Amino acid sequence: MAITRVSDLETPSVLIDLDKMERNITSMQARCDELGIDFRPHIKTHKIPDIARRQIEAGAVGIACQKVSEAEVFVDAGFRDIQIPYNIVGERKTRRLAALAQRADITVAVDSQAVVDGIAEAVEEAGASIGMLVELVSLNNRTGTTSQAALELARHIATSENLRFAGLMIYPSDAAIRPRLQETLALLADARIDVKTVSGGGSGAIREAHLIPELTEMRVGTFLFWDWGSVNSRYTSFDNCAMRVRTTVVSANEATRVILDGGSKALHSETVDSNYGYIEEHPAAKLYKVNEEHGYVDFSDCDALPQVGDALHVVPVHTCVVTNLHNQLYGLRGDAIEEIWDVAARGMVW
Amino acid sequence: MAITRVSDLETPSVLIDLDKMERNITSMQARCDELGIDFRPHIKTHKIPDIARRQIEAGAVGIACQKVSEAEVFVDAGFRDIQIPYNIVGERKTRRLAALAQRADITVAVDSQAVVDGIAEAVEEAGASIGMLVELVSLNNRTGTTSQAALELARHIATSENLRFAGLMIYPSDAAIRPRLQETLALLADARIDVKTVSGGGSGAIREAHLIPELTEMRVGTFLFWDWGSVNSRYTSFDNCAMRVRTTVVSANEATRVILDGGSKALHSETVDSNYGYIEEHPAAKLYKVNEEHGYVDFSDCDALPQVGDALHVVPVHTCVVTNLHNQLYGLRGDAIEEIWDVAARGMVW
Repeated sequence: MAITRVSDLETPSVLIDLDKMERNITSMQARCDELGIDFRPHIKTHKIPDIARRQIEAGAVGIACQKVSEAEVFVDAGFRDIQIPYNIVGERKTRRLAALAQRADITVAVDSQAVVDGIAEAVEEAGASIGMLVELVSLNNRTGTTSQAALELARHIATSENLRFAGLMIYPSDAAIRPRLQETLALLADARIDVKTVSGGGSGAIREAHLIPELTEMRVGTFLFWDWGSVNSRYTSFDNCAMRVRTTVVSANEATRVILDGGSKALHSETVDSNYGYIEEHPAAKLYKVNEEHGYVDFSDCDALPQVGDALHVVPVHTCVVTNLHNQLYGLRGDAIEEIWDVAARGMVW
Repeated sequence: MAITRVSDLETPSVLIDLDKMERNITSMQARCDELGIDFRPHIKTHKIPDIARRQIEAGAVGIACQKVSEAEVFVDAGFRDIQIPYNIVGERKTRRLAALAQRADITVAVDSQAVVDGIAEAVEEAGASIGMLVELVSLNNRTGTTSQAALELARHIATSENLRFAGLMIYPSDAAIRPRLQETLALLADARIDVKTVSGGGSGAIREAHLIPELTEMRVGTFLFWDWGSVNSRYTSFDNCAMRVRTTVVSANEATRVILDGGSKALHSETVDSNYGYIEEHPAAKLYKVNEEHGYVDFSDCDALPQVGDALHVVPVHTCVVTNLHNQLYGLRGDAIEEIWDVAARGMVW
């Protein structure tokens, strides 16, 4: 049986509406063009070189990968402008990073001297050159550093001829970060340190990007497919959600509840209002629990109960983590399968 | 750099203490021997043929897989007695199942006539034979059916000469299920239907298995590695937890908090008391949040803060879902790496 239509697919399978995906690519590029800034899509959402190629063709300047191992997949696939907005720590990782920097234009984020020094050692040993963005601590209070520490890091980076201070990185770049960004830029200007790039990021932050005119580029991943989490955060509407997980009802022995063949191995375990996904055919149904291979759906608020063998399509809570659970994504034009993509950078944890 | 010691490994990596794993295999087999029942390890916890082989060598009668695609990996690896305690639904799946049944002794669980009929059609078409366990609905109120419906299903199964009624399946087989089990067995005895197997399961239920003398076998997966969830449920102690995820501190810019390079892509998103893992070196530390590639750890209740580059070892909340996120598991004897296993059945969602 050839796989040409949705009904040919095994379940659970991840379906991508190509029309919506293409529209999302076009509109995010248009938003950045309108702002006069570069767009650098984050590949974590799709992990597929062919999709990144479409993003570049639409106008993106390069890509962002979160891991060295992801960047390796994309350098192997021909990409040459790659940013890794992450502290790369550990001798094996920094050596792999240095090897990549010999093959492509690589920029990483750093937030401490320890991180800079570890990378510097490997890059110097390899005789390579690498760009460094100093990360400013932002609203999520995760990685990043303060304005004064950023200045010191920029100076420290300048002491190695194999390192290039590329500018500043922020995630998420909500408007509230602007005072710290301005303070840091003023310190760097006083020190006559040139800032080429101010890289912002975040699917929510793109909406506020016009409030930070200092930004030179935006990194966003999730916009490609969007998800229920994005709808719940009012970043977009269901009409723009391009990913669905096709599941099958495998048990329907209760009056108002069925079991799907998609659980945490297919949908992950993140939630919106204690729901693990939004069921397109039955908006009032509640996907209230998942085990690894089972999804529990309450139909108490629905008129009809599906039967064993029926397909239900679930808009995931978070598309990036769903992509990482599957070996393939299926690109659809209507009901026809136009693309079968291997998730080439799936499960790259290093 | 050859990989021979723990310190050679990239992070995040999954470490298995071989002494503890072997002890867990031995003691679970001894528990079943003592009960006079068969032991059938569930491979979902490890997904690695070599580990299943060790379980068989220790006395297991066969294995359980949750998916046809997992069973395919294990049949290819030479296993011949495989139970799939799951409703297999959909034409492509039932055809693959029938093909497997031509190569190995396969038993599946069913809980409705629709599931039986779908499998029967494929098995008859292939001229194969397959065993069927009727699942009784249990405490988790997931799949399964009632006593009377089980009798009817057993009768229905008997109408196809390609199907073999193998007995009953329960998950989890806590002692509270015994009245329903006894009722079902009495109905089947009255109908002169032979019950060869009563298959129980669950890492917690094994402790109560002596209270259900009707059981003929137990399926348990998690016992192999155990995890914080099991410790929290008082099934075992940390001393028996054989899996750790080795992570590295990548940011330490706060006074009492650090960031690890292990997040939901390495540790998954399940929790115990709002913690995403138990940090072996710092039991009072709280792994209170994960993003895909970041783990947030609060050290407020600890004496010392680790530094960038330090390794921290995390006992996961749920080992089965962690295995599914990684391409390799590393088997350790002390600090030496004795095994590098590919997770052969990783990500098999079909």
